[in-house]
Amino acid sequence: MSSLKQAQHFITVETRGQGLHEITDRVGGWVAELAMETGIVTLFCRHTSASLTIQENADPDVQRDIEAFLGRLVPESPNLYRHMMEGPDDMPAHIKSALTDVSLSIPLSAGRLVLGTWQGIFLCEHRSRPHRREVVLHATGQ
Amino acid sequence: MSSLKQAQHFITVETRGQGLHEITDRVGGWVAELAMETGIVTLFCRHTSASLTIQENADPDVQRDIEAFLGRLVPESPNLYRHMMEGPDDMPAHIKSALTDVSLSIPLSAGRLVLGTWQGIFLCEHRSRPHRREVVLHATGQ
Amino acid sequence: MSSLKQAQHFITVETRGQGLHEITDRVGGWVAELAMETGIVTLFCRHTSASLTIQENADPDVQRDIEAFLGRLVPESPNLYRHMMEGPDDMPAHIKSALTDVSLSIPLSAGRLVLGTWQGIFLCEHRSRPHRREVVLHATGQ
Repeated sequence: MSSLKQAQHFITVETRGQGLHEITDRVGGWVAELAMETGIVTLFCRHTSASLTIQENADPDVQRDIEAFLGRLVPESPNLYRHMMEGPDDMPAHIKSALTDVSLSIPLSAGRLVLGTWQGIFLCEHRSRPHRREVVLHATGQ
Repeated sequence: MSSLKQAQHFITVETRGQGLHEITDRVGGWVAELAMETGIVTLFCRHTSASLTIQENADPDVQRDIEAFLGRLVPESPNLYRHMMEGPDDMPAHIKSALTDVSLSIPLSAGRLVLGTWQGIFLCEHRSRPHRREVVLHATGQ
Repeated sequence: MSSLKQAQHFITVETRGQGLHEITDRVGGWVAELAMETGIVTLFCRHTSASLTIQENADPDVQRDIEAFLGRLVPESPNLYRHMMEGPDDMPAHIKSALTDVSLSIPLSAGRLVLGTWQGIFLCEHRSRPHRREVVLHATGQ
């Protein structure tokens, strides 16, 4: 029996402004290189105005509906927030990040992420303008 | 000093339609069989219209209030969403999943999950009809 | 190559009532003592009316805006909830906990948490009165 090992990797996502950016293939590609049979993979988003989520990746309308829902739930109304110095989309972006995920953990089985058939991993950009976002991947297993 | 080991287990939850289904005993039962003293247990839900949460399990009204709140927050109004082909409860189910948890990590101490006195682990079924849901459990520890 | 090890630590946070309480330094202090180069740290909140979040820690207005947003989203209206026996702020506290995080996982790199420049770790107290809250820290790495 071999002992547990770990691996870590930083990826950069260039966003095109507000919306969900799928990163399933990039995470899966890194996992394939690990040649790790069983384990646990954690993703961590190093930002407070972008976040992570796992969602259906078959119909792109699902991603647009999630973005639209969050826009209705957390409107860019200047009179609702104190923190306004970074623009009207900044405080809503912080709140949307708090409501979604900063970290996600996905088990590895038979060398692959145990994602369900329709599950895709997404970086959610909550700011209006394009940003360069960093996500840290960490795996523990054997 | 023994070295770290890991274990993995898939459980199936037969839901009775919308609502919170407690799985604390099933997760705790698996953990007890591991005979692992200290470690970390991760749960992962393989779906985008069901999710996980940890909530009070003493008063069932808490579970009903959470379900009712999510129903008010994410109404089944056809004119709010583009993604409608799988029924009026599908897109709200995706959004409710994004707002709750797809993965949860709970430390193990003295051979038991460190859940607080009132904490129970729940699978949240967000679709109207019963479904068979899969949750992956992963433990690392010794 | 040394093998993976793990460590666990319980911290208590004395809250001053509703609001975000930063615990970044306490978590970072424990991590520094571990002398662990690479790994993964998980935080777990043992309560259902308090939770965890990672948010901007530069401008305290961000923390107040998040608290105010959650107050508007989940109002203390007696007619909205069945579970009222622990006070008008209890059921809203459970819901706010479900919408934020009960567990967070943060990779460790070069001996430090890979938090972004503006990211702070917060315990969110959702009850009106001060409480003593317990957070469990778990690290796996080498």
